[in-house]
Amino acid sequence: MGFPTVTAPDAEAAAAARTRQNLLTKPAGALGRLEDLSVWVASCQGQCPPRQFERVRIVVFAGDHGVTRARVSAYPPEVTAQMVANIESGGAAINALAAVGDAGVRVVDMAVNNETNAASAVYKVRRGSGDIAREDALSTEQTLAAVEAGRRIADEEVDGGADLLIPGDMGIGNTTVATTLVASLTGAEPVAAVGHGTGIDDAGWARKTAAVRDALFRSRSQRSDPLGLLRCCGGADLAALAGFCAQAAVRRTPVLLDGLASTAAALVAEQLAPGARAWWQAGHRSPEPAHALACTALGLEPILDLRMRLGEGSGAAVALPVLRAAVATLASMATFSEAGVSGPADQAGQ
Amino acid sequence: MGFPTVTAPDAEAAAAARTRQNLLTKPAGALGRLEDLSVWVASCQGQCPPRQFERVRIVVFAGDHGVTRARVSAYPPEVTAQMVANIESGGAAINALAAVGDAGVRVVDMAVNNETNAASAVYKVRRGSGDIAREDALSTEQTLAAVEAGRRIADEEVDGGADLLIPGDMGIGNTTVATTLVASLTGAEPVAAVGHGTGIDDAGWARKTAAVRDALFRSRSQRSDPLGLLRCCGGADLAALAGFCAQAAVRRTPVLLDGLASTAAALVAEQLAPGARAWWQAGHRSPEPAHALACTALGLEPILDLRMRLGEGSGAAVALPVLRAAVATLASMATFSEAGVSGPADQAGQ
Repeated sequence: MGFPTVTAPDAEAAAAARTRQNLLTKPAGALGRLEDLSVWVASCQGQCPPRQFERVRIVVFAGDHGVTRARVSAYPPEVTAQMVANIESGGAAINALAAVGDAGVRVVDMAVNNETNAASAVYKVRRGSGDIAREDALSTEQTLAAVEAGRRIADEEVDGGADLLIPGDMGIGNTTVATTLVASLTGAEPVAAVGHGTGIDDAGWARKTAAVRDALFRSRSQRSDPLGLLRCCGGADLAALAGFCAQAAVRRTPVLLDGLASTAAALVAEQLAPGARAWWQAGHRSPEPAHALACTALGLEPILDLRMRLGEGSGAAVALPVLRAAVATLASMATFSEAGVSGPADQAGQ
Repeated sequence: MGFPTVTAPDAEAAAAARTRQNLLTKPAGALGRLEDLSVWVASCQGQCPPRQFERVRIVVFAGDHGVTRARVSAYPPEVTAQMVANIESGGAAINALAAVGDAGVRVVDMAVNNETNAASAVYKVRRGSGDIAREDALSTEQTLAAVEAGRRIADEEVDGGADLLIPGDMGIGNTTVATTLVASLTGAEPVAAVGHGTGIDDAGWARKTAAVRDALFRSRSQRSDPLGLLRCCGGADLAALAGFCAQAAVRRTPVLLDGLASTAAALVAEQLAPGARAWWQAGHRSPEPAHALACTALGLEPILDLRMRLGEGSGAAVALPVLRAAVATLASMATFSEAGVSGPADQAGQ
């Protein structure tokens, strides 16, 4: 399980994009974050102006987690399988939001603790990952299979023409697991990393924090081994997400991360494939403290903050049109000379 | 110049939308700001679920300002006319951003200090508004004509089928005028309200602050008279924007405000047509201090903060897909019962 070296986005295209932004008919810098995002897309595509995205793919990695036995979630675990079916039939939030941004949605059952549609379960590793507070989430073989599945799914999507990937997640209990991964890799204390997930009460938060603390203790020797960490206190969905994010970077394909689960997996992916983070942007700020820790560690600043806390790729899906807007400025605005517009007056000389 | 009484958005539709959000297949509240926005759209449309917007219109109100003689802007005043032509030919930022959000763009010359296309100049009041630091911006007749123009333009757009309006602005020096209006209506000191506009240096900021202070002194008796304020220290573009925002509310048509100019005009419009603010949302947070003052006074929280500072309606145009996403959740997500998904477990009872 070795990822090839990740190559950096194209610095020449980035420089050309930065230069072009300063020639467009608006005050220098007036498009704010859109300018930075446009430069990033140009560098990922290796051309300026960049193309508008033609095939954006959201892949939702679903899995159950044994740690829900500790009642760390407000929802019963059968919801995971029900929501996989809901996404497949187009009724979930991610379906509605993807349609607005013109993205396609795919859901993959990595470790749901029920039967799901056979088409979704091609890469399924097991039924439910182990309770990380008490046992390993996966065997070594399952860990490798899950990471490899994420990698192959990224390859399938890129080979199918995807020019932007959005990793999503669905799994009751997955914020507990994701928080453990982030706390392990950033050295944060559980109390500083654990949030309220889909809406647990204070007693639930205390149980969740205890589970994270136990899982951190169990996995204390795995901090510098990303595969060991996924095996010990991850899960098949998180492992596949990590493989997916890493392989997207290997394939020089930009990624718009979503909330805690995908960003925690990305933090592991940066260990698997150093430099991969240059190919990612953070779509939406999660209220989960661990998300902020992961973003800081990866040097990412979320594009949106709409107080969403849903997962599924939903925050990134809402951020997608902002990324499209950034591309549109470089791709279709006129320059000062093209439009015959005067530049800034020389303030000192007047 | 009296506006009819503004009626409130539909409270029953709002209640139905709030109820429906809690039935959709996601944790209660998990869509954050999108839920609030979806409820607002439902209340404006008077139906739940709301329709997706079919005809969004961005109207850019252009005008020059005599106060630019005080060198309050980094750009020479001839840029206003050049940018009107650039918007007409589709090369400006607002054209690129509107296309991403599927909105139409119209530019209206209210007081550009040059010849513009005849089609844009139908409502033109004069060439350049007066230097508010030293003289009235408009005559009484010009003020009434400009407000009436904004009102008629809103009527034209609504009669043409517009179901969401975005007011934009283009005019070198207009942040100086807009800042004066906000400072007058909020009682803020000039130093607390003046920002750096399109990018002036510190000496330019000092000149701008002095101009705002002089204009505030000139207009000190007009604070409670919105038309007098527009005449004394506004401009034809700001007056038309105010008429446009007020009339949209009269016509029960939602408005997505942009940056400082449109929000300052909206603050005046709330005086012209009390209750109009219920029909508005703030699209994007401006770095101009006066914008924050105006938003606070209107009880509005900007949807986005991407460090944009361009005007033209650009920030609202980027926020438009977020509003579309909010509508999409109510319009197309499945409910728990439709999808056969279990609700939250009873945490206390487990």
